[in-house]
Amino acid sequence: MTEQASAEIEQILGFIVEIEKLKAVIRKTRPVGLDRYENSAEHSWHVCLAALMLKDYADEAVDIDRVIRMLLIHDLGEIDAGDKIIYQSETEQQKAREAAGVKRLLELLPGDRGEVWFALWQEFERGDSADARFARAIDRVPPLLHNLHGGGHSWREHGISKTRVLDVNSRIGAGSSALWAVMREKLLAAAEDGTLP
Amino acid sequence: MTEQASAEIEQILGFIVEIEKLKAVIRKTRPVGLDRYENSAEHSWHVCLAALMLKDYADEAVDIDRVIRMLLIHDLGEIDAGDKIIYQSETEQQKAREAAGVKRLLELLPGDRGEVWFALWQEFERGDSADARFARAIDRVPPLLHNLHGGGHSWREHGISKTRVLDVNSRIGAGSSALWAVMREKLLAAAEDGTLP
Repeated sequence: MTEQASAEIEQILGFIVEIEKLKAVIRKTRPVGLDRYENSAEHSWHVCLAALMLKDYADEAVDIDRVIRMLLIHDLGEIDAGDKIIYQSETEQQKAREAAGVKRLLELLPGDRGEVWFALWQEFERGDSADARFARAIDRVPPLLHNLHGGGHSWREHGISKTRVLDVNSRIGAGSSALWAVMREKLLAAAEDGTLP
Repeated sequence: MTEQASAEIEQILGFIVEIEKLKAVIRKTRPVGLDRYENSAEHSWHVCLAALMLKDYADEAVDIDRVIRMLLIHDLGEIDAGDKIIYQSETEQQKAREAAGVKRLLELLPGDRGEVWFALWQEFERGDSADARFARAIDRVPPLLHNLHGGGHSWREHGISKTRVLDVNSRIGAGSSALWAVMREKLLAAAEDGTLP
């Protein structure tokens, strides 16, 4: 092994330890069957596997491995910026904080290796490619399932109306109209039975 | 959307909710900086990103996207079988329980779609391909880092000796000799300073 490889591996191990902080970022919904709130690291795993299993229902051709890479890194910005509920998070200030946070983390990697990951993170944020549209669609599914199976707890705690839930989550339809049709049905049924206030 | 697609999506959503139980499977090490023990879902995310960043140091040519898919599903068997520390887990009984658990989960997917994932899970378990060797190498890294940065807490709690730690983790070298050289150095230094008993 060259000394350079060894030094690079040391740097990457530093990155691996640093991103572990995502396990301490607490989200706004509880996983089905758990009393505690979810953290952003386990959420990231969950959406990767959800994307993989739902890939056949993407409206456009997607590169599922790129989608998974996006989803693996999509929440890294929260280590420095914290998690905000989606209904309040899409402000310029929050997004700028997250971008700075992702940049800081990726600069821990050797040389300019972080650059390609930062570009991928930005693509996810912009949502202007087929891969990003599908990744962003999938990212919305578990929190909706948590609410649907959990008495709408997060909607209630944050005072989110049916109109807002349907509006914000309609982005699922930009990635997969079939998935949005199924989720929309569930949301309408939840509005009917009072789970969605 | 066809009725079939809608029914398939419903089945997959059932799978997505069911695998959420991995967030409740508690492992034997604490993430760096956290007081609580790690769960297997956040661990699964962590190893995927570790594999991605360390891919250039694999000894053999690997398909990193296959490695990531393996790592996304590698712990699903623990939902039914529970987590065992590696120094005690590689028994036939535990492995049979895990295989049955993975099978049960994958059968929630539509048609025979689970079969390809079960084969991938088995390949990881056997460790007899370049992809599996690298995935298994990466799987060992975070728990070692947790111990190295956390006073050897898990080694102490379970009475694991230096010889056993070096022996079991030498599998890292089967996937990446450069990575094992770095990790082995760290373990030897930890034995020197008393972190590794």
